[in-house]
This record gives sequence, C-alpha cells and structure tokens, in this order.
Amino acid sequence: MTISAGVPGSECSVAAVGWQEIASKKRALRDVAVRTFKNADDVDTAITAIDDASALVEALASGQLTAEAVTRAYIQQAIEAHENTNCLTEVCFAEAIDRAITLDKHLATTGSPYGPLHGMPISLKDQFDVKGLDTTLGYVGRSFAPAEADCVLVQMFKSMGAIVICKTNIPQSIMWCETDNPLFGLTTNPTDKRYTPGGSTGGEAALLSCRGSVLGLGTDIGGSIRIPSHMMGLYGFKPSSARLPYRGVQVSTDGQEHVPSSVGPMARSLKSIELTMRSLSNARPWTRDPKCAPIPWRQDAYDEIIQRPLVLAVLINDGVVQPHAPVARTLQHAVEILRSAGHQVFEWDASLHQDAIEVMDAYYTADGGEDIVCAVSAGGEPYIPHVEKLLKRGDAISVFEYWQLNRRKRSIQHAYLDKWQNFTLPSGEKVVADALIMPPMPHSAVPHGSCRWVGYTKVWNLMDYPALVIPGGRVGDFSKDCPVPVDRKAEAVNSHGGELDALNRALWEEKGDEMATLNLPIGIQIIGQKLEEERVLGVGKVLDDLLRKSKTT
Amino acid sequence: MTISAGVPGSECSVAAVGWQEIASKKRALRDVAVRTFKNADDVDTAITAIDDASALVEALASGQLTAEAVTRAYIQQAIEAHENTNCLTEVCFAEAIDRAITLDKHLATTGSPYGPLHGMPISLKDQFDVKGLDTTLGYVGRSFAPAEADCVLVQMFKSMGAIVICKTNIPQSIMWCETDNPLFGLTTNPTDKRYTPGGSTGGEAALLSCRGSVLGLGTDIGGSIRIPSHMMGLYGFKPSSARLPYRGVQVSTDGQEHVPSSVGPMARSLKSIELTMRSLSNARPWTRDPKCAPIPWRQDAYDEIIQRPLVLAVLINDGVVQPHAPVARTLQHAVEILRSAGHQVFEWDASLHQDAIEVMDAYYTADGGEDIVCAVSAGGEPYIPHVEKLLKRGDAISVFEYWQLNRRKRSIQHAYLDKWQNFTLPSGEKVVADALIMPPMPHSAVPHGSCRWVGYTKVWNLMDYPALVIPGGRVGDFSKDCPVPVDRKAEAVNSHGGELDALNRALWEEKGDEMATLNLPIGIQIIGQKLEEERVLGVGKVLDDLLRKSKTT
Repeated sequence: MTISAGVPGSECSVAAVGWQEIASKKRALRDVAVRTFKNADDVDTAITAIDDASALVEALASGQLTAEAVTRAYIQQAIEAHENTNCLTEVCFAEAIDRAITLDKHLATTGSPYGPLHGMPISLKDQFDVKGLDTTLGYVGRSFAPAEADCVLVQMFKSMGAIVICKTNIPQSIMWCETDNPLFGLTTNPTDKRYTPGGSTGGEAALLSCRGSVLGLGTDIGGSIRIPSHMMGLYGFKPSSARLPYRGVQVSTDGQEHVPSSVGPMARSLKSIELTMRSLSNARPWTRDPKCAPIPWRQDAYDEIIQRPLVLAVLINDGVVQPHAPVARTLQHAVEILRSAGHQVFEWDASLHQDAIEVMDAYYTADGGEDIVCAVSAGGEPYIPHVEKLLKRGDAISVFEYWQLNRRKRSIQHAYLDKWQNFTLPSGEKVVADALIMPPMPHSAVPHGSCRWVGYTKVWNLMDYPALVIPGGRVGDFSKDCPVPVDRKAEAVNSHGGELDALNRALWEEKGDEMATLNLPIGIQIIGQKLEEERVLGVGKVLDDLLRKSKTT
Repeated sequence: MTISAGVPGSECSVAAVGWQEIASKKRALRDVAVRTFKNADDVDTAITAIDDASALVEALASGQLTAEAVTRAYIQQAIEAHENTNCLTEVCFAEAIDRAITLDKHLATTGSPYGPLHGMPISLKDQFDVKGLDTTLGYVGRSFAPAEADCVLVQMFKSMGAIVICKTNIPQSIMWCETDNPLFGLTTNPTDKRYTPGGSTGGEAALLSCRGSVLGLGTDIGGSIRIPSHMMGLYGFKPSSARLPYRGVQVSTDGQEHVPSSVGPMARSLKSIELTMRSLSNARPWTRDPKCAPIPWRQDAYDEIIQRPLVLAVLINDGVVQPHAPVARTLQHAVEILRSAGHQVFEWDASLHQDAIEVMDAYYTADGGEDIVCAVSAGGEPYIPHVEKLLKRGDAISVFEYWQLNRRKRSIQHAYLDKWQNFTLPSGEKVVADALIMPPMPHSAVPHGSCRWVGYTKVWNLMDYPALVIPGGRVGDFSKDCPVPVDRKAEAVNSHGGELDALNRALWEEKGDEMATLNLPIGIQIIGQKLEEERVLGVGKVLDDLLRKSKTT
C-alpha cells in the first residue's frame, strides 16, 4: 500500500497518524455505541413491518403508536441490520430516544403532532451533516471532525418532526456503485454476504431492506440512489438537482457542478417517497438553499397523470451491455401489464447515451483526480481498486477545455430534449412520452467487485431528469411459466460483443443459478422531464399499483 | 497594433485576410442595406410614438394598424437611429416587410391575429442567431458565417407573430459596459455623440431610445441589459438565467456557466416588458431549451404583490464607489414617494458584495483569456483597451482551483439568501424584503471610456436574482428645489477614498455641469429572489406608477 505524499502544488494535508489506528478507533467507538443500545425488550416487528411511512405517521399522529416505541423498535432493527451487513457509520440512538420522548410529550400536552412527519425515524447516507456527528464520506482523514450544524435537509426534517437515528456507509470517493472503504469496511447484501447491496448509498439500502429505517436519504450523481434501491428491492427517487436542498451535504469532487448530484429518498413503499417529496417541497426549501427552484408540490400534475391512459417509452437494451434475461423479462412483464391496462408503450432508442457517458466520464476526472487524492492523503489510507482505476484515467484538463466540455454537454442536453419532445414512431407518428421506463442496471445484485456498467442510470444525471426506481420483480419470478434455465440460455437480441457486454454475459453464465436461487430483486426505472417530479411519481404509482395487483392475482 | 499569432497549444485559427478588409466589406454591405430602405414616405411618428408594446399589439390585432405600416415606420426610425449612433450590425428589412404583409393577409383572411405578438417589431443584440444573418459578437473572425437556424427565442417570437427588424452592436468580448469593436466601430449616445449609451447591449439601447424598435432583446452577465437601460432612460429586465431560453444565443467565454448570463427584454414601457415575459413564459420555453425551469407565468404572484403595502430594502451606496449626487437623489426621491404611499422601506447594506465581485472576476478570466484571444485571433483585429486590460488580469487556473471557486461562490449564495430571509433591522425586528431597490450604476451616462465600476449590477448575476431597471429621474430633475451646484457640492456621506471612488468623484467634478445640461436619464434597479420574476415586475409596476404620477403632479 502506498501512502500518498500529497499533491505537488496543492494544499493537501498529509496524515500525521497511521490510518489503521484512526479507523480502528472509529469502528470501536461505533460498535460500543451500537452494542450499548441492544435490548430485546425494545424489539417490535409489528412496528417495523409498517413499510408505508405515511401510515406510520398517521399512527403516530393519532397516538396509536408512541414516537418512543417506534424509535426504539427501529433502533433494534438497525442494530440487527448492522450486525448482518456492516451498514452503519454513525449512530445517535440516545438523542433519537430523547427526541421521541419530547415529541410524545408535545402530542400529549397539545393534542397535535409536532409536524407532518411527527415521530418518523430517518437514516442518512454519511454525506449529510448532522450536528455533533462526523461526516466522513468514508475518508479516514475526515474522522473526528463533527459537523457544527445540521444540513438544510436535516433541519427541515427535524422541524417537521422526523427523528434522525443513524448514518450509513458509502464507498471511498462516493463515485462507485458498491460500498466499501478502508475506514468502515465493506457493507454486504443482507441476502448473501458475498453479494453487494449496491452503492454508493449502499449502507442505506442494506439498512432499509432489513427494516432498520423507514426512510433513508441518499445522493445520486450516477445512480447512487437508484442502483442500491434496485438491488435491494426498494423504492428510490433521484429528483432533478434543483428540487431538494443540497446545502450542508458533503461530497467528493465538490465544486464540480456540471454533472449535478441530487439528494433523494429511499424507502420500502412508494407512499413514503411521495410523503417525503410533498412535505419537503411544501416546506419551501428555496428559502434555505439557493440551489432550489421555487416550485411547491404540484398535486394537480400528479392527479392529472394518474387518471388517464399514459404514453410511455420503453428501452430494454442500451446497446452497450445487454441486461441479464430476468432484467429484460421484468421490464417486458411491466410493458405487458401496462398495455393490458390500456396504456400506450412504444420503443425508445439509446441514441445520445454514449455521447452523454463520454462527456460525464471526462467531468469526473477533469481535475486529474486531485480532489480525491487530497481527501485520501489527509488520512493516508489505501485506495480501493475502483478508485485506483478512476485516478489512472486521465490528467487534469484546462479550464478552457472544461468550458468546451460544458458546451458539448449542453448540445447533448439540447438533442435529448428535442428527441423527447419530437419522437417519431416507425409509423411516422410524433409522440411525447409521459415517461420512459427501462432497467436501472443490466443485472441484479452481484458478488462484490463485479459491477462494471452504470450507463443505465448515469445519463439521467447529465440530463438532470428525475428518475424513480420501483421493485419490478425478482430473478426467479418467472420460473413457473418460464424456468430459469430458459432464461439463462436466452439468446441476445442485440449482442454487441464489447468487453463490458462479454463480462456481463460471463457473470450470468457463472452466477445465474445462484442469483435465481437467491431470488434477487429487480427494479424498474421511470424517467421524466426535468423538474417534473410529480409526473414521474404519478407514473410510478400507476405502474406500481399494476405490478402489485399482478402479484396478488 | 499587434496581430495575435494564435494561442500556443490551443486550436485557435488565425486570420488569413487583413481584418480591415473584412470590416470594411461588412460595414459597406450593412450601409447599402440600410440606405436602400430609406424612404420618407414610410415615416410615421404617430406609430413609433406608441411606447407600450401591448397597446401596439392591440392596435395591430384589431386592424387599427397594419403590420406593414408599423414595420415600415420602425424601419425608418431604425435607419435614423443608426445614422445618429451607429447602432445597427445586421438588418433584415426586406424579410420584415414580407413577413408583415403575410401577417396582414392572415388577419384579413382569418379575422384573427397570427399570435399574441402579431406584427410587433423586435430587434436583437448581435448574439442571437437569426437564420441567414451573421452573429458576429463584434468579432471580425465571425463575419460572413450566417446562422443556419433561428435561436429558440427568435423561433418563439416568430411563432407568436413578432417581426425581426435588425440586430444591434455590442463591445468586443461582450464583457464591457460600453459599446465598441473593431468590426462595426463605436456606438454613441443619441443625446451626445461624445457619450456612451452603455453596454454591452448598447446598440439596442441607442436604437430603442430613438424609437427605432419597440422591443429589444439583450443578454446580461454583469449588467449588460440594465446598464444601457439605465443610461438611456429605458426599462430593462434581467430574469434569472433559468427563465428564458438561451439556446442558440452565441456568447464569449461560452461554457463558463458559473456566472450565468440571462437573456431579457428592453423597452420604453414596463407593459412591454410584462407582455414579453408573460408571452414567453406561457409558451413553455422548457420544452425547447433544457436550461429553462418549467415555471409558467404566475399571475397570482404578480396580482398579490401589486395590491398590498410593500416591504422594501434600499441600498444607496455600495461602499466602493459612491453614486453621483443625482443618482443618490433619484433613489431618495423614490424612497420618499414609496413611504408616502404607505410602503415600508428599510436600509440594506452591501455586505457580501465585495466577496461576490472577487469571485466573479476570477471566473471571467479563469481560462487565462484563451477564449477571447481565440475569437480575436480568428479575425486578427486589435483589442479594444478594456479587453486588453481584462486579458492582462491573470493566468489560467486549474480545474481543481475552479471547483474551489465554485464552492466559494456557493457559500456566498448561501450567505446572501440567509441575509435576505433573515434581515435584522436596527430595532431588532426581522424582515424579509419583497424587493431591494438601488442604483444600477454610480453615475448616469458618461463620456466614452469613462466607465469603471459595474459592482451595482454584477452581484445579481452571481446570485442569479432577477433585476429590473426602470427610469427613475434625470440628472437635472431636482434643479428647481435643489439646483445642480448644490448637488455637485454635496459631501460624501460614506466616502471610501479608494481609487475607483476618486475617479468617479473626479468625473462628477469635471463633467457634472455637462451631464446636468444634457439632463441624462437615471434608472432605479429593483431586485428580487431567484426565479421570482413576477414579484419583481409587480414591485416595478408599483414604483413606476408612483414615479409617473409624481412627475405629472
């Protein structure tokens, strides 16, 4: 392992103490904090079985459940989730219980809930500043430097009555779709420790799928909310970057604003996502973060779209990496039930996606990796393999070249908008899609270190379009009428023969049986036009209702 | 004069032909095009006296005026304006008359106007692509390269029935508040040729004030709409950058998106500005330009604010360059009539403005001037003095440093929002201003080459707040009860003694009498929160009505 000696010409600080020492201390403190609160008496699986945060909040507001009981129940589930998956980084259990007691008193005294999210437990990816807790981003060098104030999002959640329980693990550099760093270590998939829960909001996804939280907050600059949601069978929403407040959220390559990162919610129910988006939008985040557009929740747009036949585009294969058969079948199944319900679904194409990805990759390393090298050298820890690869990718470019990259980005955004507003069907008919549906990834959850391609999610960050992931099915779902061996032998419809595609095929050949046995979840991604969050959630509701119905019938 | 030999390491092209030859040819073609259309029979000052575009559009829609007569009348005024001020760069008079005739036929045949702006003549700063015309930006090297398509804004205007008449002059590099370039030469103030009409949308301001157009479109990255509007006694509006479409508008330092440039209207009447903003917002620009937020015109916000007592902040002196006495008095007069009408006005301070300006100046030259050097070397013309100074200001910075600049910008935006949302009066009372009023500049129009300080306008580009300029008074307005000599002797209230302030004082000492004799216009700038254009226009209407009333009584 190499300890970086800082970056010549920059003001990077270099670690004074061995990184292992700091990491051990940090983990030990966390583990004590977690262990102290373990208490079988607090377990209440009837509470944590309530997946819908709006139902939970109703039960809390009506006094049917106390905030204390809910908080204690979630703490126990979070501890269990952590013991299984190593998903937690920071905990604030004592403060959470204190807060819950205060809220209960408030309700008892005034007869009214403290706010629209009274008593709702929340968890946060370890990028969100919470006063008194570290915001490490998984970097050793950021340890033992607690945030002096809550980030705006946490302020807003707290003022609406939500209770912060804990923070969760992310990969070194954040720029990766699995979850590992030298500070807190590897987060594993609750279904099988050999598998990743995805990333970068991977700790959150592991926690939520174990019912260790009812609502999680993540960030997404390439798929970091959507990918773990897909892999863990959750709902995850990346709004446009100007919708929710980012202020006080720490990030690597901070200042790189050309591929915008968004904050967004993750949950086990679509209603939880809607509740969050509605509550936050109506709390006027633009008066606290200048990044936010002054757009309150538009219930009319949501109501309009859920009440009529939809016009949807579908993209199954992005032309680079063909999805594993169950991923394609999950989407085809969705198309079938949508059509049966009277909605129009037409085929989209992946033109412009490759251009978009080229530009994005140039942005991520436009500083020659200086930001990440700086952050790592402050702690002195080794690089995880993905980051090492990322840093080798290229030298820094000039500001003038950077501006030319912006021009290229803009021209792609122009072309994509034009494509969306004037899509021509083979019949010659012009259509404007209400939304596009496609896979979030070309595979389900995979063994650690096997992720290669995030092209299905990242293009929507360059466009800054809202994108929702909902559970669509499972690897083994179609085993009755279409057994797994058939899936595994299915021929590629559009084989491309590239290295990435070959790797993904080899993965299916090698692990397909195992994935089917594990019956891993598969998500569906729903994309809409910039700042049209209500419409995307409305389409999500329509499809989600149809999918749930098709399961029970 | 030095002919640049291109930039080492860049892909700048270098001029093959002498720049003088190209410039002469370009001017000669323009002058012929202008002269050909001179026709005393077409003059109709009763038409061009209609300052309010909405009244003009009503007269056109009702058939009271024909589009042809209006177009012809405006062409004559534009020619006269050009002969006085050298304001035009490109003309499309023949096409405009053809279009007018087509519109007249449409109205005659169908009985309905073609669109909400049926027959309205418009003019554009020479940055907006108009199919078939050059978009030179005042660079020799961009001559004889006609645009292949209309920019989105022009498409929208045309589809609503507006008629493009001509394009107008701007300074080399666009980054300057006067109007001169080696290609088309100097644009002068119609009141006195020794004075500037301001810039960078200076040709437009000269044209509009001569009644050579009823609506002009400009761009503003530091004051380029507001400064010439102020100097020429016009209304000029810089919306937030995400409100109107920029697509197809050419710009120098293209790709530098961190201090956003906005497009916006200029006119002789506030109603013309309102008509433009309402029509464009309702035509859904976000379906054509991904930069635009999906915010239709919010009439409710406008109606709300014009019907109640306002809470306004006022800033007279920015602490760097103290305004000339008549500029301060114009604003004080506005404050008095606002207070008399029952509105609250409290004093603002200029904290954060200096930080904002430092960051902005670093952005403008973050590429070490490569973009401008490239654009100039393509033609080979000399630099105007201001650009020469700009290019000497600093070397290119690295992308990593650029990202740190973004972080600094963001923290200033955060601080300014907090200041706005939680302003504490000396009494301890907290207030949120409906708008801030302040001077657009520390002086009226000045002799060519005398502008030094655009700090009063440029901070609002870094914040991306909408900012409106309306006519507030004139240098000689207060001569009756407060003669000019008194103004000229007025002591500085907050003298700062810096070099810029000293220069501005010296300017008043030397030219004050002349400025008073010329009775030059003075504007008032009205600023609101990001994307709250309707509210700023509403406050503008309230103040404008009061000012007009105070004039006539």
